[in-house]
Amino acid sequence: MIKIAIMGYGTVGSGVVEVLETNRESIAKRAGDSIGVKYVLDLRDFEGDPIQDKVVHDYQIIVNDPEVKAVVETMGGVEPAYTFVKAMLLAGKHVATSNKALVAEKGAELIALAKEMNVNFLFEASVGGGIPIIRPLNSCLTADEIEEITGILNGTTNYMLTQMAANGSEFDDVLKDAQAKGYAEKDPSADIEGYDACRKIAILTSLVCGQQVDFTDIHTEGITKISATDIKYAKAMGRAIKLLASSKKNGDGYVAMVAPYMIDATHPLYPVNGVFNAIFVHGNVLGDSMFYGSGAGKLPTASAVVADIVDIAKHLNRNIFVEWSGEKKELLDYRKSVNKYFVRTTASEAEVAAVFSDVTYVTAEGVQGETGFVTKEMTEEEYAECASKLGVVLSMIRVA
Amino acid sequence: MIKIAIMGYGTVGSGVVEVLETNRESIAKRAGDSIGVKYVLDLRDFEGDPIQDKVVHDYQIIVNDPEVKAVVETMGGVEPAYTFVKAMLLAGKHVATSNKALVAEKGAELIALAKEMNVNFLFEASVGGGIPIIRPLNSCLTADEIEEITGILNGTTNYMLTQMAANGSEFDDVLKDAQAKGYAEKDPSADIEGYDACRKIAILTSLVCGQQVDFTDIHTEGITKISATDIKYAKAMGRAIKLLASSKKNGDGYVAMVAPYMIDATHPLYPVNGVFNAIFVHGNVLGDSMFYGSGAGKLPTASAVVADIVDIAKHLNRNIFVEWSGEKKELLDYRKSVNKYFVRTTASEAEVAAVFSDVTYVTAEGVQGETGFVTKEMTEEEYAECASKLGVVLSMIRVA
Repeated sequence: MIKIAIMGYGTVGSGVVEVLETNRESIAKRAGDSIGVKYVLDLRDFEGDPIQDKVVHDYQIIVNDPEVKAVVETMGGVEPAYTFVKAMLLAGKHVATSNKALVAEKGAELIALAKEMNVNFLFEASVGGGIPIIRPLNSCLTADEIEEITGILNGTTNYMLTQMAANGSEFDDVLKDAQAKGYAEKDPSADIEGYDACRKIAILTSLVCGQQVDFTDIHTEGITKISATDIKYAKAMGRAIKLLASSKKNGDGYVAMVAPYMIDATHPLYPVNGVFNAIFVHGNVLGDSMFYGSGAGKLPTASAVVADIVDIAKHLNRNIFVEWSGEKKELLDYRKSVNKYFVRTTASEAEVAAVFSDVTYVTAEGVQGETGFVTKEMTEEEYAECASKLGVVLSMIRVA
Repeated sequence: MIKIAIMGYGTVGSGVVEVLETNRESIAKRAGDSIGVKYVLDLRDFEGDPIQDKVVHDYQIIVNDPEVKAVVETMGGVEPAYTFVKAMLLAGKHVATSNKALVAEKGAELIALAKEMNVNFLFEASVGGGIPIIRPLNSCLTADEIEEITGILNGTTNYMLTQMAANGSEFDDVLKDAQAKGYAEKDPSADIEGYDACRKIAILTSLVCGQQVDFTDIHTEGITKISATDIKYAKAMGRAIKLLASSKKNGDGYVAMVAPYMIDATHPLYPVNGVFNAIFVHGNVLGDSMFYGSGAGKLPTASAVVADIVDIAKHLNRNIFVEWSGEKKELLDYRKSVNKYFVRTTASEAEVAAVFSDVTYVTAEGVQGETGFVTKEMTEEEYAECASKLGVVLSMIRVA
């Protein structure tokens, strides 16, 4: 039996215990050995829970137990997760994590440390929940230059945008509904401001270019400014509004960005609704591909963590190569990237035409007293300059 | 440099050479060494082609060259591919193949032989072309019991059905168009009769259950009976007709089938159009997931073959475990499986009602002189019995 420890017995951590229990036999068959949980590290005691006897409050107990071969980290946040994970790797233990904040900030360092210690640091669950995307990038799409990776990487905001489109409701009402249903946190900013998606696209971009991409370098816009009126225009244009996190190759560089986009019905991400996530990948020889599934949730995320544990069991004495060095990759300036922009303004068509050339005007049912239009392709900075000349912009959403 | 040989310099084989050339640097980085083609085995000489000097006509030259570490098989068909591949494995060479016929029939044996020789037999390209699905099943979805795997696994038929839906055209006209565009073979039966999809779902089912599933045991219906009238009904019902290859778990058994289905707009496979393929996978803890991309074509398929070569390069002295034993898995009788059925008949509604209970009648614009209806859920054999009582059935398509 391979003994493991779980750090953080919240939603995902308890899901890992449940998945290991539910599929005990098939997991043992695939791992080549049974997997047993020896410790659960948490601040709480979980009296009455079957794992009660395994609960410890001091991570050093796990560090110092040579019987523990692998550790699951499902605490979230950079600290103390970073300190604990580093100690585990230094003690020669493998680590599987679902923690995007940790991976985005410390991924390169922990990957290097795992390699040095001849163990593995795996993080399939950190992006896209249960959707296999980290391992496909590392071991499936290896014949390709990845030219674009664009994802719906946050289930909360996708649920909210889907609800707004279905019911014509306003942002604030949908947020309250999402909070009531447990899809959004009490403090929803990590989701609705795009910070969560930003860390995830930083991880994917780091893997694609093999170097450290700092999430703080990624231009990030959330969905807080999206209104029921924007949705009306999107419908009139046969489009859906989605929060996309994307990374595009340009020569040797990458432009990464998180922002709402209007996408049309032929886009592979168009039908991705509700809490589902999906990641579109374009390779220079593969062409278009997409990976779709449950981007969050207890069991789907735990499924990805346990798959990492199975992989660890198959590589107990062998480091799986992950191309992600600590050398920082400077991103290209997003202001030089080209888009079309949907704009709503209080300016008249004549005023619009005086500033923007070649626009397409758009009307939406029941919307009056404003002008809606889509620009031709132009850079972000060209758009910004025109927009400042135009005056009042009610909203701007990129069109892809 | 890792020296390889390519057996069969057709579409995929020449694509492999092109991909290795196009992405030479990044492939070498990921493989840990550069990849060089030493031989190309083909009956033809390819005078004037850059690979001309590498062409050999006798596979024994490759067998007997210890410098060749890995062999790509892109010949297609069971023989002589089987004889050649077996000889390569016995000579201690790794093999990557795109050949679904070979894998469906001889997969278990060649996997066992590769294990015995401590080399690898990889076949990512045999299902879904460039879409990663074999490796995800083997190494990503390992925490799950896969309860359903349903795919659009044949690009030719999906292209034809998409064209029929877009233009209202009849089967024969669309087939001619697909042949003119090179999407369908001169003898199109492997595609349109569902034989191609059948071999692919046999491979996927074998991987899911870890035992040999014989493709000859899988009930297979093609798309040759689909008419423009059927498409009209599908549209009236808000559905699309897709050729689905599916495998569903029931207790310890599996029901596998290939047949056209009417699926509704909420089905993850509904938006999969044209030559694209997609594979829907439902795991007991993961829930729904889907893998989408180019299911055929020179470069996408070659991308998957080259990814196998990269994996081989990373496992030159180590067999990657694949759970697919030679022990035959008997499939459950498909006639016991439950479906709803869309039926067109010359019988009247009264005659229909006398045989089937609880049907929903359907009408389609411009269709007269017949009765269209959807049955309640019933087994295949119950349906067959009712249908024989009913008399003339113009068409039957399952509804999912």
